Amino acid sequence: MSLLCGGPVKGLLCDITGVLRESSSTDDGIPIPGSIEAITNLEKNGVKCKYVTNESQCTRADLHAKLLRLGFCMPEESIMPPALAAKQYIKQNNLRPHLLVHPNVLPDFEDLSKDDPNCVVLGDAVDLFNYENLNTVFRLIKEKNCEFISLGKGKYYREDGSLTLDVGPFTAGLEFACGKEAVVCGKPDKQFFKAGWESMNLSCEEVVMVGDDIISDVGGAQKAGIRGVLVRTGKYTSADENHDQVKPDLIVDNLAALADIIIAHNKTFS
Amino acid sequence: MSLLCGGPVKGLLCDITGVLRESSSTDDGIPIPGSIEAITNLEKNGVKCKYVTNESQCTRADLHAKLLRLGFCMPEESIMPPALAAKQYIKQNNLRPHLLVHPNVLPDFEDLSKDDPNCVVLGDAVDLFNYENLNTVFRLIKEKNCEFISLGKGKYYREDGSLTLDVGPFTAGLEFACGKEAVVCGKPDKQFFKAGWESMNLSCEEVVMVGDDIISDVGGAQKAGIRGVLVRTGKYTSADENHDQVKPDLIVDNLAALADIIIAHNKTFS
Repeated sequence: MSLLCGGPVKGLLCDITGVLRESSSTDDGIPIPGSIEAITNLEKNGVKCKYVTNESQCTRADLHAKLLRLGFCMPEESIMPPALAAKQYIKQNNLRPHLLVHPNVLPDFEDLSKDDPNCVVLGDAVDLFNYENLNTVFRLIKEKNCEFISLGKGKYYREDGSLTLDVGPFTAGLEFACGKEAVVCGKPDKQFFKAGWESMNLSCEEVVMVGDDIISDVGGAQKAGIRGVLVRTGKYTSADENHDQVKPDLIVDNLAALADIIIAHNKTFS
Repeated sequence: MSLLCGGPVKGLLCDITGVLRESSSTDDGIPIPGSIEAITNLEKNGVKCKYVTNESQCTRADLHAKLLRLGFCMPEESIMPPALAAKQYIKQNNLRPHLLVHPNVLPDFEDLSKDDPNCVVLGDAVDLFNYENLNTVFRLIKEKNCEFISLGKGKYYREDGSLTLDVGPFTAGLEFACGKEAVVCGKPDKQFFKAGWESMNLSCEEVVMVGDDIISDVGGAQKAGIRGVLVRTGKYTSADENHDQVKPDLIVDNLAALADIIIAHNKTFS
Protein backbone atom coordinates (compact mmCIF):
# COMPACT_ATOMS: atom_id res chain seq x y z
CA MET A 1 0.00 0.00 0.00
CA SER A 2 1.22 3.50 -0.84
CA LEU A 3 2.03 5.74 2.05
CA LEU A 4 1.11 9.26 2.97
CA CYS A 5 3.82 11.55 4.30
CA GLY A 6 3.41 14.13 7.03
CA GLY A 7 1.48 14.21 10.29
CA PRO A 8 -1.95 12.81 11.13
CA VAL A 9 -4.83 13.84 8.87
CA LYS A 10 -7.52 15.58 10.89
CA GLY A 11 -9.45 16.96 7.96
CA LEU A 12 -10.11 16.10 4.34
CA LEU A 13 -10.85 18.69 1.68
CA CYS A 14 -12.68 16.64 -0.90
CA ASP A 15 -13.62 17.45 -4.48
CA ILE A 16 -17.13 16.31 -5.43
CA THR A 17 -17.42 15.56 -9.13
CA GLY A 18 -14.96 12.86 -10.16
CA VAL A 19 -14.30 11.86 -6.53
CA LEU A 20 -17.71 11.33 -4.89
CA ARG A 21 -19.69 10.91 -8.09
CA GLU A 22 -19.32 10.69 -11.84
CA SER A 23 -21.02 13.60 -13.55
CA SER A 24 -23.97 13.57 -15.91
CA SER A 25 -25.71 16.43 -17.69
CA THR A 26 -29.14 14.81 -17.47
CA ASP A 27 -29.41 13.44 -13.93
CA ASP A 28 -27.60 13.44 -10.58
CA GLY A 29 -24.77 11.27 -11.87
CA ILE A 30 -23.75 8.07 -10.09
CA PRO A 31 -21.76 7.58 -6.90
CA ILE A 32 -18.23 6.33 -7.48
CA PRO A 33 -18.09 2.83 -5.91
CA GLY A 34 -17.02 2.94 -2.27
CA SER A 35 -17.17 6.72 -1.92
CA ILE A 36 -20.32 6.83 0.24
CA GLU A 37 -18.80 4.32 2.68
CA ALA A 38 -15.43 6.10 2.57
CA ILE A 39 -16.95 9.33 3.89
CA THR A 40 -18.79 7.51 6.68
CA ASN A 41 -15.62 5.64 7.50
CA LEU A 42 -13.49 8.79 7.71
CA GLU A 43 -15.95 10.66 9.89
CA LYS A 44 -16.36 7.62 12.18
CA ASN A 45 -12.60 7.72 12.63
CA GLY A 46 -12.55 11.39 13.55
CA VAL A 47 -11.52 12.85 10.18
CA LYS A 48 -13.61 15.92 9.36
CA CYS A 49 -14.69 16.42 5.73
CA LYS A 50 -15.38 19.58 3.73
CA TYR A 51 -16.34 19.51 0.09
CA VAL A 52 -14.43 22.09 -1.95
CA THR A 53 -16.01 22.10 -5.36
CA ASN A 54 -15.84 24.35 -8.38
CA GLU A 55 -19.38 23.29 -9.19
CA SER A 56 -21.05 26.34 -10.66
CA GLN A 57 -23.94 24.76 -12.52
CA CYS A 58 -26.35 24.75 -9.58
CA THR A 59 -26.93 26.32 -6.18
CA ARG A 60 -25.42 24.78 -3.07
CA ALA A 61 -28.87 23.66 -1.94
CA ASP A 62 -29.45 21.85 -5.26
CA LEU A 63 -26.03 20.24 -5.18
CA HIS A 64 -26.63 19.09 -1.61
CA ALA A 65 -30.01 17.63 -2.54
CA LYS A 66 -28.39 15.75 -5.45
CA LEU A 67 -25.78 14.22 -3.18
CA LEU A 68 -28.40 13.15 -0.64
CA ARG A 69 -30.39 11.48 -3.43
CA LEU A 70 -27.25 9.57 -4.42
CA GLY A 71 -26.96 8.26 -0.84
CA PHE A 72 -24.37 10.63 0.64
CA CYS A 73 -24.93 12.12 4.05
CA MET A 74 -23.42 15.50 4.89
CA PRO A 75 -24.69 18.87 6.12
CA GLU A 76 -25.29 21.49 3.40
CA GLU A 77 -22.81 23.82 5.13
CA SER A 78 -19.98 21.35 4.54
CA ILE A 79 -20.19 22.09 0.80
CA MET A 80 -18.10 25.04 -0.38
CA PRO A 81 -18.97 26.16 -3.91
CA PRO A 82 -17.28 29.14 -5.60
CA ALA A 83 -20.54 31.08 -6.05
CA LEU A 84 -20.80 31.64 -2.30
CA ALA A 85 -17.17 32.74 -2.11
CA ALA A 86 -17.81 35.14 -5.00
CA LYS A 87 -20.93 36.51 -3.34
CA GLN A 88 -18.97 37.21 -0.17
CA TYR A 89 -16.27 38.99 -2.22
CA ILE A 90 -18.91 41.04 -4.07
CA LYS A 91 -20.56 42.14 -0.84
CA GLN A 92 -17.27 43.00 0.85
CA ASN A 93 -16.26 45.19 -2.09
CA ASN A 94 -19.67 46.79 -2.76
CA LEU A 95 -19.80 45.42 -6.29
CA ARG A 96 -22.77 45.07 -8.65
CA PRO A 97 -22.31 42.01 -10.83
CA HIS A 98 -23.10 41.28 -14.44
CA LEU A 99 -23.52 37.50 -14.42
CA LEU A 100 -22.49 35.06 -17.14
CA VAL A 101 -23.21 31.90 -15.17
CA HIS A 102 -25.33 28.79 -15.44
CA PRO A 103 -29.04 29.70 -15.06
CA ASN A 104 -29.30 27.17 -12.22
CA VAL A 105 -26.81 29.12 -10.09
CA LEU A 106 -28.61 32.48 -10.43
CA PRO A 107 -30.54 32.06 -7.13
CA ASP A 108 -27.20 32.22 -5.27
CA PHE A 109 -26.84 35.83 -6.52
CA GLU A 110 -30.50 36.78 -6.24
CA ASP A 111 -30.29 39.46 -3.56
CA LEU A 112 -27.45 41.47 -5.13
CA SER A 113 -27.99 44.69 -7.05
CA LYS A 114 -27.16 44.25 -10.72
CA ASP A 115 -27.89 47.75 -12.04
CA ASP A 116 -25.04 49.57 -13.76
CA PRO A 117 -22.63 46.66 -13.18
CA ASN A 118 -19.07 47.29 -12.03
CA CYS A 119 -17.97 43.67 -12.02
CA VAL A 120 -18.39 40.56 -14.15
CA VAL A 121 -18.89 37.08 -12.70
CA LEU A 122 -17.99 34.25 -15.06
CA GLY A 123 -19.16 30.74 -14.14
CA ASP A 124 -19.61 27.48 -16.01
CA ALA A 125 -22.27 28.97 -18.27
CA VAL A 126 -22.24 25.99 -20.70
CA ASP A 127 -24.52 26.83 -23.66
CA LEU A 128 -24.57 30.49 -22.64
CA PHE A 129 -20.90 30.64 -23.66
CA ASN A 130 -21.70 32.12 -27.05
CA TYR A 131 -20.09 34.90 -29.05
CA GLU A 132 -22.63 37.55 -28.10
CA ASN A 133 -22.45 36.88 -24.34
CA LEU A 134 -18.65 36.65 -24.38
CA ASN A 135 -18.43 39.96 -26.25
CA THR A 136 -20.72 41.57 -23.67
CA VAL A 137 -18.51 40.58 -20.74
CA PHE A 138 -15.37 41.44 -22.74
CA ARG A 139 -16.63 44.99 -23.33
CA LEU A 140 -17.63 45.43 -19.69
CA ILE A 141 -14.14 44.42 -18.54
CA LYS A 142 -12.16 46.17 -21.28
CA GLU A 143 -14.17 49.33 -21.90
CA LYS A 144 -16.09 49.85 -18.64
CA ASN A 145 -13.17 48.64 -16.53
CA CYS A 146 -15.41 46.22 -14.58
CA GLU A 147 -13.68 43.94 -12.10
CA PHE A 148 -13.38 40.37 -13.42
CA ILE A 149 -14.39 37.53 -11.09
CA SER A 150 -14.20 33.91 -12.21
CA LEU A 151 -15.74 30.91 -10.46
CA GLY A 152 -12.67 28.74 -11.00
CA LYS A 153 -9.89 27.99 -13.45
CA GLY A 154 -10.59 24.30 -14.05
CA LYS A 155 -9.74 23.37 -17.62
CA TYR A 156 -12.34 20.69 -18.31
CA TYR A 157 -14.40 17.96 -16.70
CA ARG A 158 -15.80 14.66 -17.82
CA GLU A 159 -19.54 14.61 -18.38
CA ASP A 160 -21.56 11.79 -19.92
CA GLY A 161 -18.24 10.19 -20.83
CA SER A 162 -16.87 13.18 -22.77
CA LEU A 163 -14.32 15.81 -21.80
CA THR A 164 -16.10 19.14 -21.66
CA LEU A 165 -14.74 22.69 -21.40
CA ASP A 166 -14.95 24.20 -17.92
CA VAL A 167 -14.96 27.90 -17.01
CA GLY A 168 -11.13 28.07 -16.96
CA PRO A 169 -10.51 28.30 -20.71
CA PHE A 170 -13.10 31.08 -21.06
CA THR A 171 -11.48 32.89 -18.14
CA ALA A 172 -8.06 32.50 -19.74
CA GLY A 173 -9.37 33.72 -23.09
CA LEU A 174 -10.93 36.84 -21.59
CA GLU A 175 -7.81 37.50 -19.50
CA PHE A 176 -5.80 37.35 -22.73
CA ALA A 177 -8.24 39.67 -24.54
CA CYS A 178 -8.41 42.22 -21.72
CA GLY A 179 -4.84 42.04 -20.45
CA LYS A 180 -6.28 41.70 -16.93
CA GLU A 181 -6.20 38.83 -14.47
CA ALA A 182 -9.42 37.50 -13.00
CA VAL A 183 -10.04 37.25 -9.28
CA VAL A 184 -10.61 33.50 -8.97
CA CYS A 185 -13.19 32.48 -6.37
CA GLY A 186 -12.69 28.75 -6.40
CA LYS A 187 -9.93 26.21 -6.92
CA PRO A 188 -6.98 26.65 -7.47
CA ASP A 189 -7.12 29.94 -5.54
CA LYS A 190 -5.18 29.65 -2.29
CA GLN A 191 -7.78 31.61 -0.29
CA PHE A 192 -10.43 29.12 -1.32
CA PHE A 193 -8.51 26.15 0.08
CA LYS A 194 -7.59 28.14 3.17
CA ALA A 195 -11.23 28.97 3.87
CA GLY A 196 -11.80 25.21 3.74
CA TRP A 197 -9.32 24.20 6.43
CA GLU A 198 -10.05 27.24 8.58
CA SER A 199 -13.75 26.35 8.59
CA MET A 200 -12.73 23.06 10.25
CA ASN A 201 -10.52 24.91 12.76
CA LEU A 202 -7.49 23.06 11.42
CA SER A 203 -4.09 24.18 10.23
CA CYS A 204 -2.58 23.50 6.83
CA GLU A 205 -0.41 20.58 7.97
CA GLU A 206 -3.45 18.77 9.39
CA VAL A 207 -5.41 18.53 6.14
CA VAL A 208 -5.24 16.74 2.82
CA MET A 209 -6.97 17.72 -0.44
CA VAL A 210 -8.19 15.01 -2.79
CA GLY A 211 -9.37 15.56 -6.36
CA ASP A 212 -9.32 14.30 -9.93
CA ASP A 213 -7.85 17.50 -11.41
CA ILE A 214 -4.06 17.28 -11.35
CA ILE A 215 -3.63 21.05 -11.81
CA SER A 216 -6.52 22.68 -10.04
CA ASP A 217 -7.08 20.22 -7.17
CA VAL A 218 -3.66 18.69 -6.56
CA GLY A 219 -1.34 21.43 -7.80
CA GLY A 220 -3.59 24.11 -6.29
CA ALA A 221 -3.60 22.41 -2.89
CA GLN A 222 0.16 22.01 -2.89
CA LYS A 223 0.64 25.67 -3.79
CA ALA A 224 -1.70 26.55 -0.91
CA GLY A 225 0.61 24.58 1.38
CA ILE A 226 -1.33 21.36 1.94
CA ARG A 227 -0.94 17.78 0.78
CA GLY A 228 -2.58 16.99 -2.55
CA VAL A 229 -3.84 13.53 -3.49
CA LEU A 230 -4.95 12.48 -6.98
CA VAL A 231 -7.66 9.85 -7.53
CA ARG A 232 -7.76 7.57 -10.55
CA THR A 233 -11.46 8.36 -11.08
CA GLY A 234 -13.34 11.18 -12.80
CA LYS A 235 -11.35 12.92 -15.49
CA TYR A 236 -8.05 11.33 -14.42
CA THR A 237 -6.00 10.01 -17.33
CA SER A 238 -2.83 7.92 -17.10
CA ALA A 239 -0.82 10.87 -18.43
CA ASP A 240 -1.47 12.59 -15.09
CA GLU A 241 0.83 10.06 -13.37
CA ASN A 242 3.89 11.70 -14.92
CA HIS A 243 2.74 15.27 -15.14
CA ASP A 244 5.55 17.70 -15.92
CA GLN A 245 4.43 20.32 -13.41
CA VAL A 246 2.58 18.60 -10.59
CA LYS A 247 3.73 15.63 -8.53
CA PRO A 248 0.90 14.49 -6.21
CA ASP A 249 1.75 13.54 -2.63
CA LEU A 250 -0.12 10.34 -3.35
CA ILE A 251 -2.07 8.73 -6.19
CA VAL A 252 -4.87 6.36 -5.21
CA ASP A 253 -7.39 4.28 -7.14
CA ASN A 254 -10.34 6.05 -5.55
CA LEU A 255 -11.61 7.77 -2.43
CA ALA A 256 -12.24 4.44 -0.67
CA ALA A 257 -8.55 3.55 -0.99
CA LEU A 258 -7.56 6.97 0.35
CA ALA A 259 -9.89 6.62 3.35
CA ASP A 260 -8.20 3.32 4.25
CA ILE A 261 -4.75 4.88 3.87
CA ILE A 262 -5.63 7.93 5.99
CA ILE A 263 -7.12 5.82 8.78
CA ALA A 264 -4.10 3.50 8.81
CA HIS A 265 -1.75 6.51 8.64
CA ASN A 266 -3.44 8.18 11.61
CA LYS A 267 -3.12 4.97 13.65
CA THR A 268 0.67 5.16 13.37
CA PHE A 269 0.49 8.31 15.51
CA SER A 270 -1.80 6.94 18.23
CA MET B 1 7.20 65.93 -37.56
CA SER B 2 8.18 62.68 -35.89
CA LEU B 3 11.11 60.87 -37.35
CA LEU B 4 11.68 57.32 -38.40
CA CYS B 5 14.94 55.66 -37.46
CA GLY B 6 16.93 53.26 -39.59
CA GLY B 7 17.71 53.10 -43.29
CA PRO B 8 15.50 53.87 -46.27
CA VAL B 9 12.11 52.18 -46.41
CA LYS B 10 11.81 50.12 -49.57
CA GLY B 11 8.73 48.19 -48.57
CA LEU B 12 5.71 48.66 -46.38
CA LEU B 13 3.89 45.80 -44.68
CA CYS B 14 0.47 47.28 -44.11
CA ASP B 15 -2.42 46.04 -42.00
CA ILE B 16 -5.81 46.45 -43.69
CA THR B 17 -8.59 46.86 -41.15
CA GLY B 18 -8.00 49.89 -38.97
CA VAL B 19 -5.31 51.25 -41.30
CA LEU B 20 -6.80 51.25 -44.81
CA ARG B 21 -10.43 51.07 -43.75
CA GLU B 22 -12.68 51.09 -40.72
CA SER B 23 -14.51 47.80 -40.37
CA SER B 24 -18.23 47.13 -40.54
CA SER B 25 -20.13 43.86 -40.18
CA THR B 26 -22.78 44.84 -42.69
CA ASP B 27 -20.92 46.39 -45.63
CA ASP B 28 -17.38 46.96 -46.94
CA GLY B 29 -16.59 49.51 -44.25
CA ILE B 30 -15.26 52.97 -45.14
CA PRO B 31 -11.78 54.05 -46.26
CA ILE B 32 -9.83 55.88 -43.57
CA PRO B 33 -9.34 59.44 -44.89
CA GLY B 34 -6.13 59.80 -46.90
CA SER B 35 -5.31 56.09 -46.99
CA ILE B 36 -6.16 55.56 -50.69
CA GLU B 37 -3.91 58.47 -51.68
CA ALA B 38 -1.21 57.33 -49.22
CA ILE B 39 -0.83 53.99 -51.00
CA THR B 40 -0.70 55.64 -54.44
CA ASN B 41 1.82 58.12 -53.09
CA LEU B 42 4.08 55.44 -51.61
CA GLU B 43 4.09 53.31 -54.75
CA LYS B 44 4.73 56.36 -56.94
CA ASN B 45 7.77 57.01 -54.77
CA GLY B 46 9.11 53.48 -55.19
CA VAL B 47 7.91 52.00 -51.88
CA LYS B 48 6.42 48.53 -52.43
CA CYS B 49 3.35 47.60 -50.41
CA LYS B 50 2.11 44.22 -49.14
CA TYR B 51 -1.01 43.85 -47.07
CA VAL B 52 -0.47 41.53 -44.11
CA THR B 53 -3.87 40.98 -42.60
CA ASN B 54 -5.33 38.59 -40.07
CA GLU B 55 -8.64 38.90 -41.88
CA SER B 56 -10.24 35.51 -41.67
CA GLN B 57 -13.88 36.39 -42.28
CA CYS B 58 -13.69 36.18 -46.07
CA THR B 59 -11.56 34.78 -48.89
CA ARG B 60 -8.71 36.79 -50.32
CA ALA B 61 -10.68 37.33 -53.53
CA ASP B 62 -13.62 38.75 -51.57
CA LEU B 63 -11.40 40.98 -49.47
CA HIS B 64 -9.68 42.25 -52.61
CA ALA B 65 -13.04 42.99 -54.26
CA LYS B 66 -14.13 44.92 -51.15
CA LEU B 67 -11.01 47.07 -51.21
CA LEU B 68 -11.45 47.81 -54.92
CA ARG B 69 -15.06 48.88 -54.27
CA LEU B 70 -13.77 51.26 -51.59
CA GLY B 71 -11.45 52.86 -54.17
CA PHE B 72 -8.14 51.13 -53.39
CA CYS B 73 -6.03 49.81 -56.21
CA MET B 74 -3.74 46.83 -55.59
CA PRO B 75 -3.23 43.38 -57.12
CA GLU B 76 -4.96 40.50 -55.30
CA GLU B 77 -1.58 38.83 -54.82
CA SER B 78 -0.37 41.71 -52.66
CA ILE B 79 -2.84 40.67 -49.96
CA MET B 80 -1.55 38.06 -47.50
CA PRO B 81 -4.32 36.57 -45.36
CA PRO B 82 -3.65 33.84 -42.76
CA ALA B 83 -5.95 31.30 -44.43
CA LEU B 84 -3.58 30.97 -47.38
CA ALA B 85 -0.59 30.56 -45.05
CA ALA B 86 -2.53 27.90 -43.14
CA LYS B 87 -3.45 26.08 -46.33
CA GLN B 88 0.19 26.00 -47.37
CA TYR B 89 1.15 24.60 -43.95
CA ILE B 90 -1.63 21.99 -44.14
CA LYS B 91 -0.50 20.82 -47.58
CA GLN B 92 3.17 20.70 -46.61
CA ASN B 93 2.37 18.55 -43.59
CA ASN B 94 -0.25 16.30 -45.23
CA LEU B 95 -2.92 17.37 -42.75
CA ARG B 96 -6.69 16.98 -42.97
CA PRO B 97 -8.38 19.93 -41.26
CA HIS B 98 -11.46 20.23 -39.11
CA LEU B 99 -12.45 23.87 -39.67
CA LEU B 100 -13.94 26.25 -37.14
CA VAL B 101 -13.76 29.34 -39.30
CA HIS B 102 -16.05 31.97 -40.72
CA PRO B 103 -18.34 30.42 -43.38
CA ASN B 104 -17.13 33.05 -45.87
CA VAL B 105 -13.57 31.77 -45.68
CA LEU B 106 -14.46 28.12 -46.37
CA PRO B 107 -13.79 28.41 -50.13
CA ASP B 108 -10.09 28.99 -49.32
CA PHE B 109 -9.98 25.44 -47.89
CA GLU B 110 -12.29 23.85 -50.46
CA ASP B 111 -9.88 21.46 -52.13
CA LEU B 112 -8.46 19.91 -48.94
CA SER B 113 -9.54 16.50 -47.64
CA LYS B 114 -11.42 16.84 -44.36
CA ASP B 115 -12.16 13.17 -43.62
CA ASP B 116 -10.88 11.80 -40.33
CA PRO B 117 -9.29 15.13 -39.37
CA ASN B 118 -5.81 15.27 -37.85
CA CYS B 119 -5.69 19.03 -37.38
CA VAL B 120 -7.99 21.83 -36.29
CA VAL B 121 -8.03 25.25 -37.95
CA LEU B 122 -9.45 28.02 -35.79
CA GLY B 123 -10.35 31.31 -37.49
CA ASP B 124 -12.50 34.28 -36.62
CA ALA B 125 -15.67 32.17 -36.56
CA VAL B 126 -17.79 34.92 -34.93
CA ASP B 127 -21.25 33.47 -34.17
CA LEU B 128 -19.93 29.94 -34.70
CA PHE B 129 -17.89 30.41 -31.52
CA ASN B 130 -20.43 28.57 -29.39
CA TYR B 131 -20.05 26.01 -26.62
CA GLU B 132 -20.78 23.01 -28.83
CA ASN B 133 -18.32 23.97 -31.58
CA LEU B 134 -15.61 24.89 -29.07
CA ASN B 135 -16.06 21.55 -27.29
CA THR B 136 -15.75 19.73 -30.62
CA VAL B 137 -12.39 21.32 -31.43
CA PHE B 138 -11.25 20.93 -27.80
CA ARG B 139 -11.90 17.16 -27.93
CA LEU B 140 -10.15 16.81 -31.29
CA ILE B 141 -7.04 18.52 -29.94
CA LYS B 142 -7.08 16.99 -26.46
CA GLU B 143 -8.36 13.47 -27.08
CA LYS B 144 -7.52 12.83 -30.76
CA ASN B 145 -4.23 14.72 -30.51
CA CYS B 146 -5.03 16.81 -33.59
CA GLU B 147 -2.55 19.53 -34.49
CA PHE B 148 -3.87 22.98 -33.56
CA ILE B 149 -3.59 25.76 -36.15
CA SER B 150 -4.87 29.24 -35.46
CA LEU B 151 -5.38 32.03 -37.99
CA GLY B 152 -3.90 34.67 -35.71
CA LYS B 153 -3.64 35.77 -32.11
CA GLY B 154 -5.23 39.20 -32.39
CA LYS B 155 -7.15 40.04 -29.22
CA TYR B 156 -9.99 42.14 -30.59
CA TYR B 157 -10.92 44.53 -33.35
CA ARG B 158 -13.29 47.44 -33.68
CA GLU B 159 -16.41 46.76 -35.71
CA ASP B 160 -19.42 49.04 -36.08
CA GLY B 161 -17.89 51.14 -33.32
CA SER B 162 -17.60 48.32 -30.76
CA LEU B 163 -14.62 46.30 -29.63
CA THR B 164 -15.21 42.70 -30.68
CA LEU B 165 -13.39 39.51 -29.71
CA ASP B 166 -10.97 38.23 -32.35
CA VAL B 167 -9.69 34.66 -32.77
CA GLY B 168 -6.82 35.21 -30.27
CA PRO B 169 -8.82 34.83 -27.03
CA PHE B 170 -10.42 31.61 -28.30
CA THR B 171 -6.98 30.34 -29.29
CA ALA B 172 -5.59 31.25 -25.86
CA GLY B 173 -8.55 29.55 -24.12
CA LEU B 174 -8.10 26.33 -26.07
CA GLU B 175 -4.33 26.40 -25.52
CA PHE B 176 -5.02 26.70 -21.79
CA ALA B 177 -7.56 23.84 -21.88
CA CYS B 178 -5.35 21.52 -23.93
CA GLY B 179 -1.93 22.45 -22.54
CA LYS B 180 -0.75 22.76 -26.15
CA GLU B 181 0.42 25.76 -28.14
CA ALA B 182 -1.24 26.56 -31.44
CA VAL B 183 0.71 26.96 -34.67
CA VAL B 184 -0.20 30.53 -35.54
CA CYS B 185 -0.54 31.26 -39.27
CA GLY B 186 -0.91 35.02 -39.17
CA LYS B 187 0.30 37.96 -37.12
CA PRO B 188 2.16 38.04 -34.75
CA ASP B 189 3.94 34.93 -36.07
CA LYS B 190 7.45 35.81 -37.24
CA GLN B 191 7.25 33.57 -40.31
CA PHE B 192 4.16 35.43 -41.45
CA PHE B 193 5.93 38.82 -41.43
CA LYS B 194 9.02 37.25 -43.00
CA ALA B 195 6.97 35.81 -45.88
CA GLY B 196 5.79 39.39 -46.40
CA TRP B 197 9.15 41.04 -46.85
CA GLU B 198 10.62 38.07 -48.74
CA SER B 199 7.77 38.27 -51.25
CA MET B 200 8.98 41.80 -52.04
CA ASN B 201 12.61 40.57 -52.33
CA LEU B 202 13.57 42.85 -49.46
CA SER B 203 15.47 42.28 -46.24
CA CYS B 204 14.20 43.00 -42.74
CA GLU B 205 15.98 46.34 -42.36
CA GLU B 206 14.39 47.65 -45.56
CA VAL B 207 10.76 47.30 -44.45
CA VAL B 208 8.35 48.82 -41.97
CA MET B 209 5.15 47.31 -40.61
CA VAL B 210 2.19 49.56 -39.85
CA GLY B 211 -0.92 48.55 -37.93
CA ASP B 212 -3.47 49.53 -35.30
CA ASP B 213 -2.78 46.56 -33.01
CA ILE B 214 -0.03 47.47 -30.56
CA ILE B 215 0.70 43.84 -29.67
CA SER B 216 0.06 41.83 -32.79
CA ASP B 217 1.09 44.35 -35.47
CA VAL B 218 3.70 46.53 -33.78
CA GLY B 219 5.09 44.18 -31.15
CA GLY B 220 4.92 41.24 -33.56
CA ALA B 221 6.84 43.16 -36.24
CA GLN B 222 9.50 44.25 -33.77
CA LYS B 223 9.95 40.67 -32.53
CA ALA B 224 10.31 39.59 -36.17
CA GLY B 225 13.15 42.13 -36.49
CA ILE B 226 11.50 44.95 -38.42
CA ARG B 227 10.35 48.46 -37.53
CA GLY B 228 6.80 48.67 -36.19
CA VAL B 229 4.62 51.77 -36.56
CA LEU B 230 1.32 52.34 -34.75
CA VAL B 231 -1.51 54.39 -36.31
CA ARG B 232 -4.01 56.36 -34.27
CA THR B 233 -6.90 54.89 -36.27
CA GLY B 234 -8.90 51.65 -36.02
CA LYS B 235 -8.87 50.13 -32.56
CA TYR B 236 -6.06 52.37 -31.29
CA THR B 237 -6.74 53.84 -27.87
CA SER B 238 -4.68 56.48 -26.08
CA ALA B 239 -3.54 53.85 -23.55
CA ASP B 240 -1.48 52.30 -26.38
CA GLU B 241 0.85 55.33 -26.31
CA ASN B 242 2.36 54.17 -23.03
CA HIS B 243 2.04 50.43 -23.38
CA ASP B 244 4.04 48.54 -20.79
CA GLN B 245 5.36 45.92 -23.20
CA VAL B 246 5.54 47.45 -26.67
CA LYS B 247 7.18 50.73 -27.64
CA PRO B 248 6.46 51.50 -31.31
CA ASP B 249 9.26 52.85 -33.50
CA LEU B 250 6.83 55.59 -34.41
CA ILE B 251 3.22 56.59 -33.69
CA VAL B 252 1.39 58.47 -36.44
CA ASP B 253 -2.10 59.90 -36.79
CA ASN B 254 -2.87 57.75 -39.81
CA LEU B 255 -1.40 56.05 -42.88
CA ALA B 256 -1.32 59.32 -44.82
CA ALA B 257 0.98 60.84 -42.21
CA LEU B 258 3.21 57.75 -42.31
CA ALA B 259 3.43 57.90 -46.11
CA ASP B 260 4.64 61.52 -45.92
CA ILE B 261 7.20 60.60 -43.25
CA ILE B 262 8.52 57.60 -45.20
CA ILE B 263 8.87 59.59 -48.41
CA ALA B 264 10.67 62.43 -46.59
CA HIS B 265 12.82 59.90 -44.71
CA ASN B 266 13.86 58.17 -47.93
CA LYS B 267 14.86 61.52 -49.49
CA THR B 268 17.46 62.03 -46.76
CA PHE B 269 19.33 59.04 -48.26
CA SER B 270 19.23 60.15 -51.89
